Amino acid sequence: MSSGLQRALGVCYYPEHWPEEIWARDAARMVSAGITWVRIGEFAWSRMEPEPGRFTFDWLDRAIDVLASAGLRIVLGTPTCTPPRWMLDRFPDMLAVDAMGRVRKFGSRRHYCFSHAGYRAASAAIADVLGQRYGQDPRIHAWQLDNEYGCHDTVLSYSEAARHAFQDWLATRYDTIDALNTAWGNVFWSMEYDSFAQVDLPNLTVTEPNPSHALAFRRFSSDQVVAYHTAQVEALRAHTDAPLIHNYMGRVLDFDHFEVGRSIEIASWDSYPIGFLSDRLEATPAHKSHYLQQGDPDMQAFHHDLYRAVGRDGRWWVMEQQPGPVNWAPYNPAPLPGMVRLWTWEAFAHGAEVVSYFRWRQAPFAQEQMHSGLLRPDDAPAPGLAEAEKVAAELRSMPEVCVQQAQVALVFDYASEWAWATLPQGAGFRYFALMLDAYRALRKRGLSIDILPSTTSDVTGYKLVLAPGVATLPESLKRALGQTTAIVGPRCNAVTEELTIPTPMGPDLPDLDVTVTRVESLPPGVERSVPGIGAVQHWTETLEGSAQVTLRDADGAAVMVSNGALSYLGGWPDSALWDHLIADAAARCGIDTQPLPDGLRCRDTKTHRFYFNYAATPCAFDGLSLPAAGVAWARR
Amino acid sequence: MSSGLQRALGVCYYPEHWPEEIWARDAARMVSAGITWVRIGEFAWSRMEPEPGRFTFDWLDRAIDVLASAGLRIVLGTPTCTPPRWMLDRFPDMLAVDAMGRVRKFGSRRHYCFSHAGYRAASAAIADVLGQRYGQDPRIHAWQLDNEYGCHDTVLSYSEAARHAFQDWLATRYDTIDALNTAWGNVFWSMEYDSFAQVDLPNLTVTEPNPSHALAFRRFSSDQVVAYHTAQVEALRAHTDAPLIHNYMGRVLDFDHFEVGRSIEIASWDSYPIGFLSDRLEATPAHKSHYLQQGDPDMQAFHHDLYRAVGRDGRWWVMEQQPGPVNWAPYNPAPLPGMVRLWTWEAFAHGAEVVSYFRWRQAPFAQEQMHSGLLRPDDAPAPGLAEAEKVAAELRSMPEVCVQQAQVALVFDYASEWAWATLPQGAGFRYFALMLDAYRALRKRGLSIDILPSTTSDVTGYKLVLAPGVATLPESLKRALGQTTAIVGPRCNAVTEELTIPTPMGPDLPDLDVTVTRVESLPPGVERSVPGIGAVQHWTETLEGSAQVTLRDADGAAVMVSNGALSYLGGWPDSALWDHLIADAAARCGIDTQPLPDGLRCRDTKTHRFYFNYAATPCAFDGLSLPAAGVAWARR
Amino acid sequence: MSSGLQRALGVCYYPEHWPEEIWARDAARMVSAGITWVRIGEFAWSRMEPEPGRFTFDWLDRAIDVLASAGLRIVLGTPTCTPPRWMLDRFPDMLAVDAMGRVRKFGSRRHYCFSHAGYRAASAAIADVLGQRYGQDPRIHAWQLDNEYGCHDTVLSYSEAARHAFQDWLATRYDTIDALNTAWGNVFWSMEYDSFAQVDLPNLTVTEPNPSHALAFRRFSSDQVVAYHTAQVEALRAHTDAPLIHNYMGRVLDFDHFEVGRSIEIASWDSYPIGFLSDRLEATPAHKSHYLQQGDPDMQAFHHDLYRAVGRDGRWWVMEQQPGPVNWAPYNPAPLPGMVRLWTWEAFAHGAEVVSYFRWRQAPFAQEQMHSGLLRPDDAPAPGLAEAEKVAAELRSMPEVCVQQAQVALVFDYASEWAWATLPQGAGFRYFALMLDAYRALRKRGLSIDILPSTTSDVTGYKLVLAPGVATLPESLKRALGQTTAIVGPRCNAVTEELTIPTPMGPDLPDLDVTVTRVESLPPGVERSVPGIGAVQHWTETLEGSAQVTLRDADGAAVMVSNGALSYLGGWPDSALWDHLIADAAARCGIDTQPLPDGLRCRDTKTHRFYFNYAATPCAFDGLSLPAAGVAWARR
Ligand SMILES: [Zn+2]
Ligand SMILES: [Zn+2]
Ligand SMILES: [Zn+2]
Repeated sequence: MSSGLQRALGVCYYPEHWPEEIWARDAARMVSAGITWVRIGEFAWSRMEPEPGRFTFDWLDRAIDVLASAGLRIVLGTPTCTPPRWMLDRFPDMLAVDAMGRVRKFGSRRHYCFSHAGYRAASAAIADVLGQRYGQDPRIHAWQLDNEYGCHDTVLSYSEAARHAFQDWLATRYDTIDALNTAWGNVFWSMEYDSFAQVDLPNLTVTEPNPSHALAFRRFSSDQVVAYHTAQVEALRAHTDAPLIHNYMGRVLDFDHFEVGRSIEIASWDSYPIGFLSDRLEATPAHKSHYLQQGDPDMQAFHHDLYRAVGRDGRWWVMEQQPGPVNWAPYNPAPLPGMVRLWTWEAFAHGAEVVSYFRWRQAPFAQEQMHSGLLRPDDAPAPGLAEAEKVAAELRSMPEVCVQQAQVALVFDYASEWAWATLPQGAGFRYFALMLDAYRALRKRGLSIDILPSTTSDVTGYKLVLAPGVATLPESLKRALGQTTAIVGPRCNAVTEELTIPTPMGPDLPDLDVTVTRVESLPPGVERSVPGIGAVQHWTETLEGSAQVTLRDADGAAVMVSNGALSYLGGWPDSALWDHLIADAAARCGIDTQPLPDGLRCRDTKTHRFYFNYAATPCAFDGLSLPAAGVAWARR
Repeated sequence: MSSGLQRALGVCYYPEHWPEEIWARDAARMVSAGITWVRIGEFAWSRMEPEPGRFTFDWLDRAIDVLASAGLRIVLGTPTCTPPRWMLDRFPDMLAVDAMGRVRKFGSRRHYCFSHAGYRAASAAIADVLGQRYGQDPRIHAWQLDNEYGCHDTVLSYSEAARHAFQDWLATRYDTIDALNTAWGNVFWSMEYDSFAQVDLPNLTVTEPNPSHALAFRRFSSDQVVAYHTAQVEALRAHTDAPLIHNYMGRVLDFDHFEVGRSIEIASWDSYPIGFLSDRLEATPAHKSHYLQQGDPDMQAFHHDLYRAVGRDGRWWVMEQQPGPVNWAPYNPAPLPGMVRLWTWEAFAHGAEVVSYFRWRQAPFAQEQMHSGLLRPDDAPAPGLAEAEKVAAELRSMPEVCVQQAQVALVFDYASEWAWATLPQGAGFRYFALMLDAYRALRKRGLSIDILPSTTSDVTGYKLVLAPGVATLPESLKRALGQTTAIVGPRCNAVTEELTIPTPMGPDLPDLDVTVTRVESLPPGVERSVPGIGAVQHWTETLEGSAQVTLRDADGAAVMVSNGALSYLGGWPDSALWDHLIADAAARCGIDTQPLPDGLRCRDTKTHRFYFNYAATPCAFDGLSLPAAGVAWARR
Repeated sequence: MSSGLQRALGVCYYPEHWPEEIWARDAARMVSAGITWVRIGEFAWSRMEPEPGRFTFDWLDRAIDVLASAGLRIVLGTPTCTPPRWMLDRFPDMLAVDAMGRVRKFGSRRHYCFSHAGYRAASAAIADVLGQRYGQDPRIHAWQLDNEYGCHDTVLSYSEAARHAFQDWLATRYDTIDALNTAWGNVFWSMEYDSFAQVDLPNLTVTEPNPSHALAFRRFSSDQVVAYHTAQVEALRAHTDAPLIHNYMGRVLDFDHFEVGRSIEIASWDSYPIGFLSDRLEATPAHKSHYLQQGDPDMQAFHHDLYRAVGRDGRWWVMEQQPGPVNWAPYNPAPLPGMVRLWTWEAFAHGAEVVSYFRWRQAPFAQEQMHSGLLRPDDAPAPGLAEAEKVAAELRSMPEVCVQQAQVALVFDYASEWAWATLPQGAGFRYFALMLDAYRALRKRGLSIDILPSTTSDVTGYKLVLAPGVATLPESLKRALGQTTAIVGPRCNAVTEELTIPTPMGPDLPDLDVTVTRVESLPPGVERSVPGIGAVQHWTETLEGSAQVTLRDADGAAVMVSNGALSYLGGWPDSALWDHLIADAAARCGIDTQPLPDGLRCRDTKTHRFYFNYAATPCAFDGLSLPAAGVAWARR
């Protein structure tokens, strides 16, 4: 987890969108802008194989030749997120089905069900064909598999293929139907099954399905993504030693990225700060206005740290970086001048090897015609290009800096997202929002953070570990948390892996006598005050046991209990309480913190401290003076 | 309508959820807590009949034995709201279909269409089997039929079974298709039918269906519930003399509870004050915050009074009483300390024979795993248990008190809910909300209320009767209203039973010359002031005729007209206007009223006045001092 | 475009709803109220043809006789928006399918798919039968075809009939599938088709479909309405010389009204000011409360001016005028006293030949039983009748006045509505809302306006032309705009007819060097200030080029650029900025304007200026004093 900063720029390019005459000029302009990497091919199946079995790689050969000749390193994508129209003639039942039972039709992308065996084989086959042709080609420096698994809500499919595969998955997991009935508590409401073949998908039930049923379907669905992915990995591995990459999408949490990442070298993600702020963040309108042209100041960093954990040996990229306004969010303003540079440097500071802009030139047609690129549709430079060029210039003068292990770690667990989405208990309870709140609180105190999967069994080296919302704490993690200062909770180890309540009830922590005996969810605007400090909102727990109470609410009820370095937190803090918790815990374990000015964020590498001003106004701090959207760095 | 207060506590218990070893200890603990009644069996079909025709009652025999031996009286439920999975193999078409045309699948509960003849027969058959086995068993003191008819929006089904049954129902009701065409005014938009077989269910029409068509489907759907219910009643009646009970759900109004209640002895309902406040009440966020941990102060009492009217001879229970946080509302906070006791005493004060808590122990699995019981999943007492025990102790020292007829009555009519849901005319018009407003206004003046069905033909004994929103006033009720002081309206007798406008236009009251010549619905925030008194909101009518105007709005338009003791109210009052109306009418007919402090409510029995403090702060009144969530009583 | 004011009143009448005995009295009362025209028949198919091929026109003959004998001029409607139930036996697949794939069933009206060839032929056939019977009947002075095409969202149908017709339409438009693939940019995401038969309708795709695909479906759907309409036109033309009319519905924009209007003599529309305010206007709650009982002060006038443009030689009517509360809006208050008269006079001032009230008597049954008429269901006069009578009396004393060409014109283009609905880019972007904002700004300065289709090629005679939001500017219009003072933009000429971005990028105006190089959509509450003047909201563009900047925002960025009389506006103005733009442009081109008091509007005819007070309070202006809902006129 301490790779050097490679810090190269890349770009996504679609030669199939442009006349072949301009490819060479495009390539030259990329190089002159300081771009090193170019991703191609991931949506071009209809041009690679216009009819079943008839391959037309000549254009791709020429594109590779032009790009590589210009000095660019190529990432070649498998085009499996865009099966051509003829694929539906082969597999009329390959389409996913939504939770309302409607077939999700051809006409955009990701029109396939992960469980469809025929399409899975066809995906492996095109990967195999590509691997055969380009696997040993030295110009292909890396491979991308598919594109943004799960984007557009595509993990959960209610197709016949999924139903059969789910039944098989259940049979493997539970062996006997009695075991399943027992594990799920199907005696409740007489939901007992006589055979796996009777188990339907958990959609369209009269009222909510058994949460165990729903969570099993979530786990199954994640496994189907992994299996689908693995088929392509295996096909390519047979032909190439180049690193394999997938580009995850921000806050797409319906499958386990750690599991997908296990079989490939590099994690990457697609970072659209302004789109995400508008489209997929819980935040007040005031917060959204404040950061309208900058993006949320913690959303990108969170994902950077997450994918550093997902990538093998910490290797990760930003595969798609927003370069200007996008088209897909409810509102699509332009970045403040400087933000494209800021986002890029922030990624590098978090250890990105490559930041690759999406995309070279805005295509004037089809779904993303309003999504900007580094060039405008009329070939003129868009504002993002100059910022990318500036970063390229700065990179040349920047010494190699290295990721170093952070002092603080945060546990992130996909299954917890699925568990709490299945059983929220309060309309305000979203695991991701809780995580981002915790992460934000750490960052507002100037801390750098490592994200850890819940499979972690060793946290030595971290002074402080936070583990909010982990539905089921693995024993190994539970033990590891005793190695350092840790804050566990709220809603931690509250359920079994089957999404039932364990006995004894959680959190069942070693050496901390506390039991969550009751939970309450609270509507917006209602909070439980922690006098002089802050308040608990959304979620609050009744804590019993002999552990020392280290925080109380206005009624004297325990909000946090502790034994030495281990604390259990029994509620969802507001920002003031989070700040207190972080400041206090950091002080206890010897971490220096200081509150940062509004919108300022830091990131420490082995040699430097980077500063990022997400505010739309200038900011002075640590003797530095940053303009709006400013970036600064200093040797530590 | 003047049965004695039996005032016993009960609990819902699921022996099938727990190891047989702990049944006896559970029973002993119930008894020691002061519990008399235990309800079992209503969700256990898959354990009673694991395969079609193979009955396994041994466990149930043993459970009954254990519970009865401990001294508990048993209510045995028919398990028909949870048909086992194998039932679908017998009747693949038994599932209900929602208004969007989607089959409502197996995997939770209530997965049946009330119109499916096969499933109806199967339900009667299991009731018959249970009746044969336990009908003469002296340990079974009462029977519950099915569970919460209509919960989860299950009354209206758009299945093929429903379509055929609806056509038959129409043929019976109208005899000829011409009669139907005329009754519904199908000449409008050329909607005339040539045969009953052409009449489809009124969903998925291009724009709204004929309201007469929609209301007929509502009436039919209610009748199907009654017929389904009756089949079970008949099956059990053949074998037992124990009282039959159904547990209605709060604010589930899609079928006529009076009709269902006609064939059984005891009405009961499931009272979840905090869940209902969050889930199914029109109220401002401020009101919902104010009563967040108490529930709305009038919602429970309203239902208590309603089910006293539904039960034969006024016999009614609370079959399920919320004992702590539930799982199914948008937000699920815990009751304030004292509220479980308050709710229990309030039910007794309104005449409940039994208040039965749902449930004994929180099951750690399946859909309701987060729904509390008197015991926690780990077998420790939950906070509700001590409150139940306190009530049990108090009950022993309380003399028998008796329900007495109230001075004030309120007419409640299910068909009016259906009529106005079909034809709201204003997005704010909900019959139930109007009723609860009227009921609340009476209660805030300290009054006790009886609820009367619209089939009432004698109101002597009541000093004041309110009849707001009765879509069609039966002649008998119309005449009865002349017997006392009455306020009729708004929107009363405005339509025929076919949901057409009568000529002469309503309200057509005896000896009150008033015609509603025009109606208006108003958006939130718009009101018509009644100077110095209050305002009309949501709904306002233009009144014409020679009757004396007894209230005018700021423009001088009539808001209420009267002749002697009979008044017609032409708008939906805000709370100030309601209070004026009630105070004034009470004064006129010699009823003492006084405004109660915020959150305080009273209830008079023959011998006592009970006080309930729904506020989260202490309250002093009538020389009494009540803590938050306090209960008091005094001899009258 | 300068027909004389015919100014007659009409009414919609349904003899089939009423006993034949009262027809004569109804007719006499109409005449005595001053009504000249009566529309009949448009929903009566089941009475004209109760079984396939069995026609029963005797009742209609008698109704025509009674009405005509009383002196009324008859508009006879084809009943094709209400096919009888038996039609479904002939064409079970004639029903439309909604975007979610659900068949839209019989039981209300408009239950047909415009693409169904069988039903289209059946519609022409009934028109033919009617034409044969009544085409030469001198009592039938005009014909209405169908009723409110597109009402209830009926233009876009996803049926099999539509799918096949769409494929044929595409084949005609593009000739080869390669041409389609190229035009749509289907290479993006490998969406290329091999044949037209592979092209599905653009609903239920995984994420949004190709905008070119979606827009093509919109154009196709509009063409299907036109073709359906044309079939009826041709059937009637063979038999009659009486003028043909269609009654368009307010803000139903899914088909091109200009195209439908091309083949018939008279445009008419159905004007429900209060219903529209509640139901289909973007406006703040404050605005909606302010005009609750009056309707928006510009919505009617906009449509009047629109349909004057749609009608041949400027001939247009109001076919249905709201006479009191309606039933179909979320809230349905009554008009302020005087508003029915005001609306009527406003229509005449804009050039209406006839204003026809919907409807004579409120039918006490079926869907519109709560929709008022001039008479109540009990036959008594409703308040609207007296206002109609007042207008009739005033008309007699009013000299003939004439429409004159306005000084200002506004371009309205249906395809732009479809384009921006397909590709809004910001959740706040609705073409119609932008148009109404522009229109309102002109009106608040006292201006009268002509609306022009985008096919206009000559604007001489207009001093000022506004063209906001025209997706694709036809060359002829582009050239015409150079003939006068014009403000083009925002979002003008931004896309091709295929909904792709042109190169060079728009607006590509003659003699104005400006390119929109970037666009941004802004959330509510965010705006870009134009200091001292107003602000840009919702939508803002980055303008580049050498054109003179004539407005700048607070950052100095260009908001408007101009060359001589031609300006391009790069954002969506708020009301203050609109007012400045209009005042300034008017001054530049020699048009007198003055800001009108709140709620007051004017309209100039050749000889008079009319004043309409939409406020609920009196108003003084130009030496006139108008009560609330007052109308005044003065010779110019
Ligand atoms: Zn992407
Ligand atoms: Zn229940
Ligand atoms: Zn109409």
